[in-house]
Amino acid sequence: MISIRPVEGLPEIEQGADLGELIAGRAELADRDILVVAQKAVSKAEGRVVRLVDVEPSERARELAGGEDARRIEVILRESARIVRSRPPLVIAETRHGFVCASAGVDSSNAPEAGTVVLLPVNPDASAQRLRDRVRELTGAEVGVIVSDSFGRPWRHGTTDVAIGLAGIRPLLDLKGTLDRAGYELHATVIAVADELAGAAELVLGKTGGVPAAVIRGYDAGGEGSARDLVMPAERDLFR
Amino acid sequence: MISIRPVEGLPEIEQGADLGELIAGRAELADRDILVVAQKAVSKAEGRVVRLVDVEPSERARELAGGEDARRIEVILRESARIVRSRPPLVIAETRHGFVCASAGVDSSNAPEAGTVVLLPVNPDASAQRLRDRVRELTGAEVGVIVSDSFGRPWRHGTTDVAIGLAGIRPLLDLKGTLDRAGYELHATVIAVADELAGAAELVLGKTGGVPAAVIRGYDAGGEGSARDLVMPAERDLFR
Repeated sequence: MISIRPVEGLPEIEQGADLGELIAGRAELADRDILVVAQKAVSKAEGRVVRLVDVEPSERARELAGGEDARRIEVILRESARIVRSRPPLVIAETRHGFVCASAGVDSSNAPEAGTVVLLPVNPDASAQRLRDRVRELTGAEVGVIVSDSFGRPWRHGTTDVAIGLAGIRPLLDLKGTLDRAGYELHATVIAVADELAGAAELVLGKTGGVPAAVIRGYDAGGEGSARDLVMPAERDLFR
Repeated sequence: MISIRPVEGLPEIEQGADLGELIAGRAELADRDILVVAQKAVSKAEGRVVRLVDVEPSERARELAGGEDARRIEVILRESARIVRSRPPLVIAETRHGFVCASAGVDSSNAPEAGTVVLLPVNPDASAQRLRDRVRELTGAEVGVIVSDSFGRPWRHGTTDVAIGLAGIRPLLDLKGTLDRAGYELHATVIAVADELAGAAELVLGKTGGVPAAVIRGYDAGGEGSARDLVMPAERDLFR
């Protein structure tokens, strides 16, 4: 059996907050637990917040803004390696990490105050590793950590949470070469378990109620890897 | 807390199998539980299996097959409303239900015998509804039902399980108009909870060990809808 428990009672996360300590004080953590933390909380703790009054929009940002706040678009452009699609004021971008998502992950919901936007962590794997190390230090527990974010997807309606950073987790389960019950080899069956874990945790995260973390127990995702392993190389992406 | 339990001890599913009875006899089901059943099991019970010796490939199937089994491609073409991309022998297709996925959902892993392929159910929502009705009849429990399948996705590596049919479930959670803790309205935040539930269940389904069903407890997904609500209309799909 797998269980998913929200970490309740966390305060509003501010820059410099010791997220590992805040969570360890409110959740019972054991070896092999998977701690899923919403990107927004991680980014706020890391100070990845921009005040729009400090932003001077470029000409390109004004074009893409289509009459909406060009400063927000300017922040998105700065976070982007390339713009994948745009329909002003909506922008789908590839972030510097390689993630393709709306607004390059720049978000104003759940921002610390009006007039600010929250950016993705600079290195979400490293953010996850720091949380993992801090939890081990405080509790002795060897947990896996996923930093999650809500991404839209092509073809399908609605967002699902995916893993944008991870530590102590095997992001993909590769069944290639495994035989099914009839002895038929399962070709090319690679399961994005880290994304499924992030999505499962989202079910108990309160988008509005300030529950930015959850603990998954009973799934053995132990291993190593990077959230970059979940990015499909363009040349292999038949869907793209 | 949410729990996810595999339904263990199910036999190999054959055409005409009473899946609802098989599951109800092996799982404790209660009101508001969500029963997730792998598409392969549903399709086999419904006889959605094709023997390749009975298939005469068309000229187009031979072209797309690129030297591999053209009969399998022929079955894919028959299941497709349109071919989205192809790189022989790989085909991404839109099914008649509107789902965009590899091979139009036609799969030979976990097929009942060598030389056969399994198709998606004709109407996966109706399949889910029949399971829901049968479980109610046998146990009195009002469960939600999801028929799940493993889909690849653009941009990201690995498959995640998604809902291709459902009954007694609200597929999308729409937070539009909801305020976050800072009083900021959450624009356009629609969460594909049915897909997250399907992905969560996948974590306990054995792709190789014959565990085609799971029970999720503790998440209130009650409501109505169709898995077609999870298909993004082309004209609104900025990712496409």
